Amino acid sequence: MTDAVSNAIESGSDPEPAAVTFSDIEAAAARIRTEAVLTPLLSHPALNKRTGATVLIKPENLQRSGSFKFRGAFNRLNLVPHANRANGVVACSSGNHAQGVAAGAQILSMPATIVMPADAPAIKLERTREFGATVVTYDRDTEDRDAIARALCEETGATFVHPFNDPGVIAGQGTVGLEMAHQAEALGYQLDDVLACTGGGGLSSGIALALAEKVPTARFHTVEPENFDEYRRSLEAGERLSNTQKSGSICDALLSETPGDIGFSILRQLAGEGVTVTDDEALEAVAFAFRELKLVVEPGGAVALAALLSGKLPVKGKTVGVVLTGGNIDPRMLMRALEA
Amino acid sequence: MTDAVSNAIESGSDPEPAAVTFSDIEAAAARIRTEAVLTPLLSHPALNKRTGATVLIKPENLQRSGSFKFRGAFNRLNLVPHANRANGVVACSSGNHAQGVAAGAQILSMPATIVMPADAPAIKLERTREFGATVVTYDRDTEDRDAIARALCEETGATFVHPFNDPGVIAGQGTVGLEMAHQAEALGYQLDDVLACTGGGGLSSGIALALAEKVPTARFHTVEPENFDEYRRSLEAGERLSNTQKSGSICDALLSETPGDIGFSILRQLAGEGVTVTDDEALEAVAFAFRELKLVVEPGGAVALAALLSGKLPVKGKTVGVVLTGGNIDPRMLMRALEA
Repeated sequence: MTDAVSNAIESGSDPEPAAVTFSDIEAAAARIRTEAVLTPLLSHPALNKRTGATVLIKPENLQRSGSFKFRGAFNRLNLVPHANRANGVVACSSGNHAQGVAAGAQILSMPATIVMPADAPAIKLERTREFGATVVTYDRDTEDRDAIARALCEETGATFVHPFNDPGVIAGQGTVGLEMAHQAEALGYQLDDVLACTGGGGLSSGIALALAEKVPTARFHTVEPENFDEYRRSLEAGERLSNTQKSGSICDALLSETPGDIGFSILRQLAGEGVTVTDDEALEAVAFAFRELKLVVEPGGAVALAALLSGKLPVKGKTVGVVLTGGNIDPRMLMRALEA
Repeated sequence: MTDAVSNAIESGSDPEPAAVTFSDIEAAAARIRTEAVLTPLLSHPALNKRTGATVLIKPENLQRSGSFKFRGAFNRLNLVPHANRANGVVACSSGNHAQGVAAGAQILSMPATIVMPADAPAIKLERTREFGATVVTYDRDTEDRDAIARALCEETGATFVHPFNDPGVIAGQGTVGLEMAHQAEALGYQLDDVLACTGGGGLSSGIALALAEKVPTARFHTVEPENFDEYRRSLEAGERLSNTQKSGSICDALLSETPGDIGFSILRQLAGEGVTVTDDEALEAVAFAFRELKLVVEPGGAVALAALLSGKLPVKGKTVGVVLTGGNIDPRMLMRALEA
């Protein structure tokens, strides 16, 4: 195995993180254009009334595979040299990254193997298989998923696609910000603040990069679940800090342990104030999206909306972009939100 | 009371129905532009794959008040002379028309009184009141809602807004078709077929009129629930026929008794083949919209999608526009769809 693969799997700790530039995002936009959904930029009177702001919603739950993850995965897979594509792709994920990689690989006719915990929700295993991927399950308590992925890559020559600490993935996710900037401009809006949920920081750093180029006056804010606010704390401390908890939030899409070094190196320069929301606030946002916006959003995908609804960031009178990142929610979780 | 009000309340049976023209739709578009949501025209790989067509989705569930009804109501209210506006507006509806009229009247600071059955779902009564309307309830078995509305209009000089048989309402709903035509063209698509659910025919006739002008090669199709297919039968017979059933479908938004004469006079010239779907097919479409499209759609709002998913209209290889008309669904009904 090459060092590159090893580094990729181990989530990266290079002293000099790989660079991602705005032109990488533009190139990614051209690459994914024919296959990704150009999600609209929505507004809704009920949300404007509730917040006192002009809120522009980027609904990535309407994206292919149900979340923004398709963008980064498909861009990254396009960067695999043609000669290596038949060797396939490997990813570790129990959620949206799994579906994004599987959907992208299917389009490029690349074999995809996704390493998923054996106790992952049946619906997620099933949807990943529906996109044509082979699912390899592991026992969370006794097995090391990275070792499994590493062995698969060594055996087959497959490319490992990290969920966030990869320049190609970050550039792909950055197309969310690029589109938002173009769409807001076309509608005649000047963005003041932009919020997105933050796990490892792939999406957030990509959006922040795109905004820095296209709308330099807009301020980007990370939004995280309470107790999983490694970005907020790391940005304050000026160094990458880890979460002590590894589980215990319903925002399963956002439970990364430590900021990726590439994303962190971008966000420490470009991010504004970090925001955290509670699980109850995330659930309220899921319910608001259902009742008022008529959008299906999962808890982790609703935290940026939760930050607005809970008043965690003062936005009255401002023009605010908010990303709804995914809609792969279990119906029982939706019911819990609606009954709260 | 004037004859006009009387005719309006009695759903119209003029030998010469009032005319609606394309320029009325253009005027409506200009009138509602600042207050209505310009809903996007979406596409989704999962729907294209399932149907073998290029499907363009007009999601009116994302509209202000949760359905397209706001368009027609707000346009109609704008046509009330300024001198009469303080007298208010009256409408009869247990559902989306109630919310559309209430939301429109609130913007224009017109008092709104909505006549609703006492046994209407609590959520619908509540939402109508949230838009500032006064709700007057009646007993379905013993009281005549039209008589109540008539008395209210006589008493107060209020304007009655019919849910579908009114040129101003039809012109407002027609903006759905006008927007779809513009948006499809901007995306480089040539529409072959367009489907929308059909109750009294306000939306359908408005869309058909807009398409006849903007995309004359596109064919418009009515979609109705089984046993409530008065339009399909009336169009075949060449005269307005009534349904024998008055209840018994979950598509509560579509249980009108007889085609409106204005809508019928338009659709008999412009509509293609009528399609009917079963309640189970509507529920499957609700579930598909939730799982794949991540959109919240009510059964009546999903029948046009149901027509596509069930293969009732041959669309393989074609470019098809489909309107999702509303998203005001009870969570229990959604669960029923997801468990089916």
